[in-house]
Amino acid sequence: MGDIPDQASPLAKDVLLLLLSAAEDPAWTRRVSERFPGLQVRWVDSRKPGGGYIQPDEIPDGVWNGVTIFYSYLPASPSRMSKVRFVQVSSAGVDKWVDHEVYKNPDVAFCTTNGCQSPQIAEWVIGTWLSSQHHFLRYANNMKEGFWESPLAVEVEDSVNLRMGILGYGAIGRQCGKIAQAMGMEVYAYTRSERSTPASRKDDSYCIPGTGDPDGLIPTKWFHGASRESVNAFLAQDLDILVLGLPLTEETKGLFGREQFEILSKRRTFVSNIARGPLVQNDALIEALETGKIRAAALDVTDPEPLPKDHPLWRAPNIFITPHVSWRTKVHWERVLGLLEANLERLHTRQPLINVVNRSLHY
Amino acid sequence: MGDIPDQASPLAKDVLLLLLSAAEDPAWTRRVSERFPGLQVRWVDSRKPGGGYIQPDEIPDGVWNGVTIFYSYLPASPSRMSKVRFVQVSSAGVDKWVDHEVYKNPDVAFCTTNGCQSPQIAEWVIGTWLSSQHHFLRYANNMKEGFWESPLAVEVEDSVNLRMGILGYGAIGRQCGKIAQAMGMEVYAYTRSERSTPASRKDDSYCIPGTGDPDGLIPTKWFHGASRESVNAFLAQDLDILVLGLPLTEETKGLFGREQFEILSKRRTFVSNIARGPLVQNDALIEALETGKIRAAALDVTDPEPLPKDHPLWRAPNIFITPHVSWRTKVHWERVLGLLEANLERLHTRQPLINVVNRSLHY
Repeated sequence: MGDIPDQASPLAKDVLLLLLSAAEDPAWTRRVSERFPGLQVRWVDSRKPGGGYIQPDEIPDGVWNGVTIFYSYLPASPSRMSKVRFVQVSSAGVDKWVDHEVYKNPDVAFCTTNGCQSPQIAEWVIGTWLSSQHHFLRYANNMKEGFWESPLAVEVEDSVNLRMGILGYGAIGRQCGKIAQAMGMEVYAYTRSERSTPASRKDDSYCIPGTGDPDGLIPTKWFHGASRESVNAFLAQDLDILVLGLPLTEETKGLFGREQFEILSKRRTFVSNIARGPLVQNDALIEALETGKIRAAALDVTDPEPLPKDHPLWRAPNIFITPHVSWRTKVHWERVLGLLEANLERLHTRQPLINVVNRSLHY
Repeated sequence: MGDIPDQASPLAKDVLLLLLSAAEDPAWTRRVSERFPGLQVRWVDSRKPGGGYIQPDEIPDGVWNGVTIFYSYLPASPSRMSKVRFVQVSSAGVDKWVDHEVYKNPDVAFCTTNGCQSPQIAEWVIGTWLSSQHHFLRYANNMKEGFWESPLAVEVEDSVNLRMGILGYGAIGRQCGKIAQAMGMEVYAYTRSERSTPASRKDDSYCIPGTGDPDGLIPTKWFHGASRESVNAFLAQDLDILVLGLPLTEETKGLFGREQFEILSKRRTFVSNIARGPLVQNDALIEALETGKIRAAALDVTDPEPLPKDHPLWRAPNIFITPHVSWRTKVHWERVLGLLEANLERLHTRQPLINVVNRSLHY
């Protein structure tokens, strides 16, 4: 074979700025710099020594100089981002960006890390569900007193033939569905747009091999719609557990109020929120728990965050709250940097990017 | 087609005595009586009003009179069981029976309810694993003080590419493997006898549709042997979680001692015991936890049971103990009575029974 002539990489003049809560991985930086000659990589560890995080606008001007690719959870002010042509948002949702000037510029590509968080968040969903259904916290309390309670003291329900409803059947929901199916559950899926054909049921977001449901084969029933009525109809499907996997948008803010919990009360549906706190009205949730309309709730996200010490949510019955940790995993940065690298490769070879955000739907 | 002549059912002269901790299900009794004409059904609810259980020998003589089929967890004295020809043991193990005279009589069929407990016990295994890996008890404690801890305070490891070892790849282990695989784990199986062919990897115990691994397709590697050396070789396979699914026999009693935990210390394997307490030497387990040789342990079974209030196991670090409840489910009796009915049907039609115990291996 003959020599392939050198061509300047489309990344040859790019400057990549990464802002993330981890120390620089020199191997990654070196590999990316070698792979895409000319690309400059600037890595900022966002963790402040005394706690808290460096905000994008706190990064010195010199570091911002010439930045064309930005990897971050939060936006910087538009002036700093004036040369940015590609934003890899480090979360699955883009709700921190929707009002941003750069986000509104269709010439700037926006991608999420959708799919990188699916395994661990699905584990959080399944784990908190099982913890509740099998009364693990009750037994943890008994342990403190060395109390071997009668095995018949409390009723247990396993998951076989129970029904999981997934409101927002995206990457995370698909991995929840995969584990639920393995436990013998039936899975109902809800999407915004109709998915009536096999092709439409596929999901092209990033998927860790062996996980998820990229072809959309798991749900036995599909629901769809953008209206509150469509959502309500889904909630009425005798769901044993409801997984909230919706993006936070103007449409979905406060979606779960008294009416929705009333619908869920028929089956006393377990509610798992791993999306965004403001999807749920706190007062309505607390009331639903206090009156036993729903059997329990697991929240990895709240409104606000951090949840203040004296907030009544902490004390609601049958609630389990974690401080927005479900995305956490030792290999988180390995996974998201792998995705970023795959997208750099696609810029390099002029292929379509992975996890491109639809700027009218915001996911 | 001509008339099929009436034939007396092989069950026409049988008397079935059920001893179980549930009130009689009249629909089941009626259906079984009609289905197998002549069969007498006697149902004893073992729960004593003040707590505790009626023992088989406490059942009045008149109720024992003529009993040929016995459904029970525990044996009665041999004289009461002199006419019994079929024992449906209400547990997955037969360790309460191995020294019993009737058990030694090869003319009496013994079957377990192996498979009926698999979904809920596998949920217990996966749930306690996830609770440990995702620090749920830490967050439950934080909740009491309304403490929104930094999401970065503690490291999390998700299950993708981790390895589950299942020591005793029977019905329960297979359902653990199924869920583990859905979470992205690799599964290693250990059986007593070699399973080198596809046919040998099948499991003919009762299996709830949609669950388990009846064809033995999930493990990527199979190990076998009856010696301690074979077990030790399995423990050395860099397992992240080890599920103990062995029957309790003379060979397996105290199998897990200091030597075994030393082997597991290489990977700090999580140990899950849902089989029988005496498989594990308490002192060795406590030492392994106190010295961090293993990351954590989840026990649904202990030695002894109930575990006394002041037993040091309760206070070992990173241990989670439940009072032998992993078999519990609302539909437990529905499932085991379904299996018993299936076995009655097989007696009726002279077909081989389901879950017949091998009287030399005791499972």
